[in-house]
Amino acid sequence: MGKLVIVGTMAFDAIETPFGKTDKILGGAATFIGLAASHFDIDAAAVSIVGGDFPQEYLDLLSNKNIDLSGVEIVKDGKTFFWSGRYHNDMNSRDTLITELNTLAHFNPVVPEAYQDAEVVMLGNLHPIVQSAVLDQMQTKPKLVVLDTMNFWMDSALDDLLNVIKRVDVITINDEEARQLTGEYSLVVAAKKIHKMGPKYVVIKKGEHGALLFNNDQVFYAPALPLKEVFDPTGAGDTFAGGFAGYMAQTGDTSFENMKNAVIFGSTLASFCVEKFGTERMVNLQSEEVRKRLLQFKQLTQFEIELS
Amino acid sequence: MGKLVIVGTMAFDAIETPFGKTDKILGGAATFIGLAASHFDIDAAAVSIVGGDFPQEYLDLLSNKNIDLSGVEIVKDGKTFFWSGRYHNDMNSRDTLITELNTLAHFNPVVPEAYQDAEVVMLGNLHPIVQSAVLDQMQTKPKLVVLDTMNFWMDSALDDLLNVIKRVDVITINDEEARQLTGEYSLVVAAKKIHKMGPKYVVIKKGEHGALLFNNDQVFYAPALPLKEVFDPTGAGDTFAGGFAGYMAQTGDTSFENMKNAVIFGSTLASFCVEKFGTERMVNLQSEEVRKRLLQFKQLTQFEIELS
Repeated sequence: MGKLVIVGTMAFDAIETPFGKTDKILGGAATFIGLAASHFDIDAAAVSIVGGDFPQEYLDLLSNKNIDLSGVEIVKDGKTFFWSGRYHNDMNSRDTLITELNTLAHFNPVVPEAYQDAEVVMLGNLHPIVQSAVLDQMQTKPKLVVLDTMNFWMDSALDDLLNVIKRVDVITINDEEARQLTGEYSLVVAAKKIHKMGPKYVVIKKGEHGALLFNNDQVFYAPALPLKEVFDPTGAGDTFAGGFAGYMAQTGDTSFENMKNAVIFGSTLASFCVEKFGTERMVNLQSEEVRKRLLQFKQLTQFEIELS
Repeated sequence: MGKLVIVGTMAFDAIETPFGKTDKILGGAATFIGLAASHFDIDAAAVSIVGGDFPQEYLDLLSNKNIDLSGVEIVKDGKTFFWSGRYHNDMNSRDTLITELNTLAHFNPVVPEAYQDAEVVMLGNLHPIVQSAVLDQMQTKPKLVVLDTMNFWMDSALDDLLNVIKRVDVITINDEEARQLTGEYSLVVAAKKIHKMGPKYVVIKKGEHGALLFNNDQVFYAPALPLKEVFDPTGAGDTFAGGFAGYMAQTGDTSFENMKNAVIFGSTLASFCVEKFGTERMVNLQSEEVRKRLLQFKQLTQFEIELS
């Protein structure tokens, strides 16, 4: 059974969208990645840090989904990372209202020994030095290292970010971030520049417009399922990454053709994430629902033109 | 052999993009639609109007591609419709610099008798009263009527537009126009509202983000081919419509599954149109190039997840 190491935040989120607002609820990249990855037949472990204020039920929720939590440090007298944000009406942009790093400011990730030979490592959005520190602990070279990041690190820690980007096989990044990282407007040209920075595979996420997977001259385009409404985009990118990495860990096949499927699984799981606030939809998501939506994705994209 | 009636402008365009500018070159909706439709095994006729200043070589260009021009009125002492526009850097928006209607101001379309029983009618972007007048002349009910329009008519002739929309099977419209027409931000909800206005099929064009085809609860998403650069978007929407209508006329199969293929053909042909100024790329496009790009579209979108 493929092993997957997930690194990322476990957090409290407070979210405002045009549809309503929440108090502090469960959030964080590792949380969303873990919930998505739990849909695959793999052995996954989360590496993260929380404070003593993090409810046991949140931890139980993940361990009940077979996510190993031995790599989650609990700082009894510390407070958990807290993020608060407000989405604009078009749901494509948001303002960060509050960021309290708390325990995250002193996070030294420790990969449990049993997972230092994992086939797949999913580096969720975090300081690039933390992401690098995880790679340093791997005792065997992973088959696939996937990195998610965001513009915040391009603004504040670009050199560190470029150092970790060099070491990964796949980067997932959104369209505006790809443009910022490369100074190129065309995503095709941006992907080529990112290849040169290290990653052989570049996934560019375009929100409601889907996601592109590039590998040199090969390209795959997975649309997003058209939805009546996006209720809360929080965690959609992490959920995509968790679906992608989970599928890759389950199959162990790093061909471009198989990676297309990983993108489709990521998009499918992300399409659920946005239907409710925070993790609410993902926590109760059944495998039969996932199967049905994969069928919808097939109908959405597959066509039958015979070419000689 | 399926007959197709094409209604639209034949025009002079002067275009400015970040890559350069042109003098008056060949343009117009019927021109781009005709060039795209010429790639199918159909009997197509253009219904349009030009002035005495319209070069014979432009007319020859279309008739050499087997477009019947008996429905093109030539006003010897009149001038041809002229449009001039400038694209912004992102190529997603443009300013109209000049519009000279000239002969178009007095256009009374006449469908040649031999085409009044056409299976497919493609109503290119024009005043909705002109579009309606064409439908009035059809002696047998067409299998499929496709309408393209734009925001200009929503602003200036909404009632006339709604009257012709009632009479068509398929509408092609861009995302911002769908939002304007319905007052709905969600394209899924907008498509439902447009269904209620008449068209059973709604195609929403999203430029570089592809196109959506809706038929009640069925939806199909054709991505645009990711391109290094879009050189000139002029005519891309018309080319899409021409590929769509041409394929439908050739196959005569109005099922949703077959209409997916029509969307793919439309997207494929449009991906060529934007590579050069005006009609330049379309005039010399070879069928082998189209076949190769269809293969690229398959690789771009098709995946192999087996579902039980």
